[in-house]
Amino acid sequence: MAQPVDEFDLIARFFKPLARDMPGAFGLRDDAAVLRPEPGFDLVVSADAIVAGVHFFTHSPPEYIARRGLRVNLSDIAAKGAVPLAYTLTLQLPSETDEAWLSGFANGLSDDQQEFGLGLLGGDTTRTDGPLSLSINIFGQVTENNIIIRSGARVGHDVYVTGTIGDAYLGLAVEQGALELPEGQDRMALVDRYCLPQPRVFLGPKLVGYASAAADVSDGLIADLGHICEASVLGAEIGFSSVPLSAAGRRTVTDNQPLHLSLLSGGDDYEIVFTAPETVRDAIEAISRDSGVPITRIGRMIERNSAGQSVVIRDDTGNQLEVGNGGYQHFRRYE
Amino acid sequence: MAQPVDEFDLIARFFKPLARDMPGAFGLRDDAAVLRPEPGFDLVVSADAIVAGVHFFTHSPPEYIARRGLRVNLSDIAAKGAVPLAYTLTLQLPSETDEAWLSGFANGLSDDQQEFGLGLLGGDTTRTDGPLSLSINIFGQVTENNIIIRSGARVGHDVYVTGTIGDAYLGLAVEQGALELPEGQDRMALVDRYCLPQPRVFLGPKLVGYASAAADVSDGLIADLGHICEASVLGAEIGFSSVPLSAAGRRTVTDNQPLHLSLLSGGDDYEIVFTAPETVRDAIEAISRDSGVPITRIGRMIERNSAGQSVVIRDDTGNQLEVGNGGYQHFRRYE
Repeated sequence: MAQPVDEFDLIARFFKPLARDMPGAFGLRDDAAVLRPEPGFDLVVSADAIVAGVHFFTHSPPEYIARRGLRVNLSDIAAKGAVPLAYTLTLQLPSETDEAWLSGFANGLSDDQQEFGLGLLGGDTTRTDGPLSLSINIFGQVTENNIIIRSGARVGHDVYVTGTIGDAYLGLAVEQGALELPEGQDRMALVDRYCLPQPRVFLGPKLVGYASAAADVSDGLIADLGHICEASVLGAEIGFSSVPLSAAGRRTVTDNQPLHLSLLSGGDDYEIVFTAPETVRDAIEAISRDSGVPITRIGRMIERNSAGQSVVIRDDTGNQLEVGNGGYQHFRRYE
Repeated sequence: MAQPVDEFDLIARFFKPLARDMPGAFGLRDDAAVLRPEPGFDLVVSADAIVAGVHFFTHSPPEYIARRGLRVNLSDIAAKGAVPLAYTLTLQLPSETDEAWLSGFANGLSDDQQEFGLGLLGGDTTRTDGPLSLSINIFGQVTENNIIIRSGARVGHDVYVTGTIGDAYLGLAVEQGALELPEGQDRMALVDRYCLPQPRVFLGPKLVGYASAAADVSDGLIADLGHICEASVLGAEIGFSSVPLSAAGRRTVTDNQPLHLSLLSGGDDYEIVFTAPETVRDAIEAISRDSGVPITRIGRMIERNSAGQSVVIRDDTGNQLEVGNGGYQHFRRYE
């Protein structure tokens, strides 16, 4: 392995180029940075850390680790209707980290900066005896007072989800050897979906003015819709067969209802679950058509039930289905 | 040790109260927060992480760890002339962390929020097999286009430093057993200074309009003045005997010039080193008097010398002194 890299050298060589287009970053050589949303816009901030062995495999390629760190954060602000501007990165590096790793990591950040239109604003790098970790703060902007929060849902509002649910969960299960799938396109599609989240960066801002509440699906569809329910002091009812699966996902869970059900609590989807009044159904359909991203109506918001269960899943005959969490816990170990 | 605490429960019990006065934090139950500087102000952002065993002793009381994390960040924005508004916290907790620890940690944050006038905006908590770490992003505001950056120094500008230099370095050396001092007030003063940084939060903003460049002294006076030199493409010349020491510091280094010299590269001072034109000497003196914080003129900015050494230390007869880094490296291990 190559020689470890000095801290200042590391910043100058690998990170300074990532701050090139951010005048307020002062070339990463100041104590702080200046960040200015455009006039008439609110600044939206979110913070998420990812740790090796907890949120990704330690042996993952550095490009993927970098992009995962950025994308889980991009997903958070996309769900709020915000357009990304910038991010800060505090990085804890195991002492054996070498130049090749750092170069790959910086390339991953650079690619995603270009893809999603944001720049590096500042940060901090520390050596650690522990696992590699990235802590990212992301900054976006949304027109004043228009952030889509979790607490805006009302009784009778429709519940929608973007894209498809469960692929990343199945992909992770395959990677961990907990689920056997033959080599082939389905396996590849599911694993890819786990390895590289696709946050809804371009779709999210289009929901401003239509969605009454939204959250990104990172903990699982039921948990994240549950967060909207908690914040809005409501319940939600969703149709099991309405939850959109990809072709690969659908083939993989055929004849295995427990596995199919577990997709709803799987997590790592990085889709957006949101609510909207019935009156904007046409507008939502148009947004889906224009953006090329499927948006599926999966249920509606209801009063909180007395049992205190916020999200109820029903089959086509109206029977309530129980969604266990057993598979989830098992799959989530990254060893 | 008590039962480890569930993630959501932890946020609700220990962190939600810290976000009480921040309407844009949405009670810490959304994906993101909204942050609004006042009209006519720029938002200033800084990010700094501290890791157990690297930046503090693992056995430090949780109150001190919390306050250290916040204060090293407060120091960064104070040096830029910004008034603190808010912060985000991503916390990596060893699995054995118990309620008593968390309660102490939250109390430490709460005390400093009150002392320095800022609130918690958001964050993320993760379990880790590695050392405890805190990654903080801090947000402040400064009147538009008035941030004090590192690159504004000019030839002939005076160099100043706030407070006293070297106490924390000596305090750390005592804590590590690398320096023997009898029990007593001096020892206590130095160790205290190391344990709880006193960032110049109230003084920093007063320097706006007077200081031409500034940095906080975290890596050491020479290194941080060196950062100003680098950014301003200049050199600096400082008088060894002008560097202000506390009474305890002065007594401790008497008759030990190598130790005395090492204070200038020691670090952890969390003072502000800044430059200003000669024309504002009276104003700087008035700021010092009004705020009750000593501000000492220690040298001046010069052209870069051909040897490429940015900071030159001279004794009272004009001879250049060599400042080694040997002691520094030794003292910085936190074991």
